[in-house]
Amino acid sequence: MVKLTEEIKESLKGVKTIYMATCSNDCIPNVAPMGAYKLLDDETMLISDQFMNKTMKNLEQNQKVAISYWGEKGGYQIKGVAVVHKDDDVFKEDVEWIKSVMPKLTPKSAVVIRITEVYSIKPGTEAGKKIL
Amino acid sequence: MVKLTEEIKESLKGVKTIYMATCSNDCIPNVAPMGAYKLLDDETMLISDQFMNKTMKNLEQNQKVAISYWGEKGGYQIKGVAVVHKDDDVFKEDVEWIKSVMPKLTPKSAVVIRITEVYSIKPGTEAGKKIL
Repeated sequence: MVKLTEEIKESLKGVKTIYMATCSNDCIPNVAPMGAYKLLDDETMLISDQFMNKTMKNLEQNQKVAISYWGEKGGYQIKGVAVVHKDDDVFKEDVEWIKSVMPKLTPKSAVVIRITEVYSIKPGTEAGKKIL
Repeated sequence: MVKLTEEIKESLKGVKTIYMATCSNDCIPNVAPMGAYKLLDDETMLISDQFMNKTMKNLEQNQKVAISYWGEKGGYQIKGVAVVHKDDDVFKEDVEWIKSVMPKLTPKSAVVIRITEVYSIKPGTEAGKKIL
């Protein structure tokens, strides 16, 4: 378990789209943009699933995920382990949150990611360096 | 082998950053932003490697890649198979191209991706639909 630094949390602010990669048990990668995400705390990210398709199929097989983003204050690659929530309090809270911020959307599940590693994606000698 | 449509090619124009996912042989995904890319033809994408780290380690094990992007004209997920070029004509052409467009950068290798599938990533009922 790692705790995101202030710098990493600042870099996420205002970023509309993050890209989440998953992979199937036969090691075929998939990457899709995600817009409905937020940090639950410094160690945990929530992504609300409205439109996941292959991502969800992959998560049923393999819970490891990688997320990259780049905004006005830079970006990082965050790696973690996902747990999919349906019909529980975590999902209910996700539904309430989406209702308040994107009322036209209907969540199918809530993906909770325990963050395990963070890497630099800054072009240059730091690229790929493990930060956390 | 698939051929990108005009609509897909148009959507790529002006997109500064695409996100490429790879995965290791033990099925751990990685996703990193790529800025130095272009289509070689309707079936093939070139990504010049200046700063690849884990991406290149994964490509040595597993050549399957997935690329997502979103620009002013929408976006897609492109899947394909990568071949890494060094010390050959493909790499020389890559070096010449980078010299002309981003002269401060020094390519380490040229990643040529044969496009095998294209998926919609448009939010809504089309999300995840196979286009090509």
